[in-house]
Amino acid sequence: MRTVEWDYERNGLRLIDQRLLPGEFKVNLYQDYHQVVVAIREMVVRGAPAIGVTAAFGLALAANQSSAGTPQELLADLQVAAEELRQSRPTAKNLTWALDRVLHVAGSGEGNVNELRIVILTQAQDLADDDVRLNQHMARLGATLIDDGDTIIHHCNTGALAAVDWGTALGVIRMAFEQGKQVRVLVDETRPRLQGARLTAWELKQAGIPYDIISDNAAGYFLSTGQAQKVFFGADRVAANGDVANKIGTYMLSLAANDNHVPVYAVVPTSTVDLSLAHGGLIPIEQRSPGEVLNLEIAGQPVAPPGSTARNPAFDITPNRLLTAIITEKGLVYPPFEQNLVRTVTGN
Amino acid sequence: MRTVEWDYERNGLRLIDQRLLPGEFKVNLYQDYHQVVVAIREMVVRGAPAIGVTAAFGLALAANQSSAGTPQELLADLQVAAEELRQSRPTAKNLTWALDRVLHVAGSGEGNVNELRIVILTQAQDLADDDVRLNQHMARLGATLIDDGDTIIHHCNTGALAAVDWGTALGVIRMAFEQGKQVRVLVDETRPRLQGARLTAWELKQAGIPYDIISDNAAGYFLSTGQAQKVFFGADRVAANGDVANKIGTYMLSLAANDNHVPVYAVVPTSTVDLSLAHGGLIPIEQRSPGEVLNLEIAGQPVAPPGSTARNPAFDITPNRLLTAIITEKGLVYPPFEQNLVRTVTGN
Repeated sequence: MRTVEWDYERNGLRLIDQRLLPGEFKVNLYQDYHQVVVAIREMVVRGAPAIGVTAAFGLALAANQSSAGTPQELLADLQVAAEELRQSRPTAKNLTWALDRVLHVAGSGEGNVNELRIVILTQAQDLADDDVRLNQHMARLGATLIDDGDTIIHHCNTGALAAVDWGTALGVIRMAFEQGKQVRVLVDETRPRLQGARLTAWELKQAGIPYDIISDNAAGYFLSTGQAQKVFFGADRVAANGDVANKIGTYMLSLAANDNHVPVYAVVPTSTVDLSLAHGGLIPIEQRSPGEVLNLEIAGQPVAPPGSTARNPAFDITPNRLLTAIITEKGLVYPPFEQNLVRTVTGN
Repeated sequence: MRTVEWDYERNGLRLIDQRLLPGEFKVNLYQDYHQVVVAIREMVVRGAPAIGVTAAFGLALAANQSSAGTPQELLADLQVAAEELRQSRPTAKNLTWALDRVLHVAGSGEGNVNELRIVILTQAQDLADDDVRLNQHMARLGATLIDDGDTIIHHCNTGALAAVDWGTALGVIRMAFEQGKQVRVLVDETRPRLQGARLTAWELKQAGIPYDIISDNAAGYFLSTGQAQKVFFGADRVAANGDVANKIGTYMLSLAANDNHVPVYAVVPTSTVDLSLAHGGLIPIEQRSPGEVLNLEIAGQPVAPPGSTARNPAFDITPNRLLTAIITEKGLVYPPFEQNLVRTVTGN
């Protein structure tokens, strides 16, 4: 099944509960958009493309839940729901992008309330289907950059679980593997929520791609000793100049790659690019609960002394100067990103 | 009590069992040097200065255990024990340094076997006492570099637990705090063994120094957003040119500090400096068990999928170009380290 998919029999949204993986594979059904807001915030679903499509289906639920008698009333209810969904997480551009797409189609749609509900659901479904197609196209473009025998350092999770299916950066690696290239992945465990150790390792294992899990802070060792040839990651928002907001740790990983002349690739559908922001310093960075840093246990014992406090920024900014290329579904973008990214995204 | 101390009543070595902290404070007594080898390897005791002195006391135990009838036989037994202790961990210079000091004194000592036993124990005790004095002197020198109001990122544990008492980098921070400077520490949790979250947080809490625990990979965020003014760490071995082998992650942390013009200080007793190695590439890097990366639990559930493999280098090399100064008990050393470090260590 897909990570995010509509259940047409039960008129609800199905999400793989990623908080439980790899220990348990459980699918949740949502029929109330308020619960979808909670699911995004609590990271039942995560990954910029996945939460974008989830929010779009959230609006389809909101349309179903609405008691509106007229299209105008329905649109007003959708606006309220969209604001709630938009606030669920602040950094990923795809969330706002998907909501705006659905609102636009709903606002310009014709027909009565029931007909508009179908228009909205159809648009959400289109975004989901597009996501898979775009990811696979991006993967084929990106796979040309991977050489036979490469060991690749990968940060966070950017696979099928981070999108509707297939994935972004991990999708590129998977494509190269399916094309017959020998690849090995050094999986950054990705503290604090360990999406690498939990989710990326799980996906790689299922795909049969060789991997080793490493502490995030060990990437520099493998880069400086010539044991890694490429660095790949996704993004939650990319500014117009190519600065990348991605999972915390991406910046330090990119610095270490640059210091050792190892190429760094961000794999980014253009829906993740925010042309309204001139540079990465303008991207809002989500601060999450200290509990995510403090809740570690080893052999059943909590790690940190009781009463400890923590700081937990969920993302950081990797400046464009550290990137070798940005891989989008519209093509590979090379420096100078200030010019080339806008050109690729707008098609001009 | 000290982290490492001789029990004169029971003729044995007492070590705080650092594997159990902060959950449990337990002191182990060792009367067999073979068990000291295991204690170092399994990290009952860790930190370069602490394992140096532990190994010295290990030789005192070996001398007690020896059934030698002549000084020559005793020295032969000591050589065997020293080799075993030397192999217990490969990276820290202090281990070899302390063993060689004790062997030298034993070899040049006068008297019968029993008198030599006393010479050996006295030398080990001298190393322990010197360690505390040197650390405090180093701390006073280093504290001049800390400004009132500084937020300091600190990697691994370099406090009283990493030495006989007081500590190296954390000792500098503690000295500044005791001098009345307002400081705050961002504690790198220090995956995989979490010496930061477990031990440094515990020491800071006891000392009343404000701190927040962070994921190692979040340091770049705090550095690039102007929220940290200094970076401090210790070292396990420093090459003649000033390249530093220290806990895995030190290199990436130093890169991030440099990228944001934040000064980086390594706090290093000269016993950690290995003038026989021209540069850091020659320092042996210990590869530890994958289990240290894979044994994480959250809410009682293992994090990684069963059957996952991991790579676990315990140290990395921070090139001298990333250091602002090396703080030793013989003075502050500034670039060019190639000239100035040798001069400081040898006193020429």
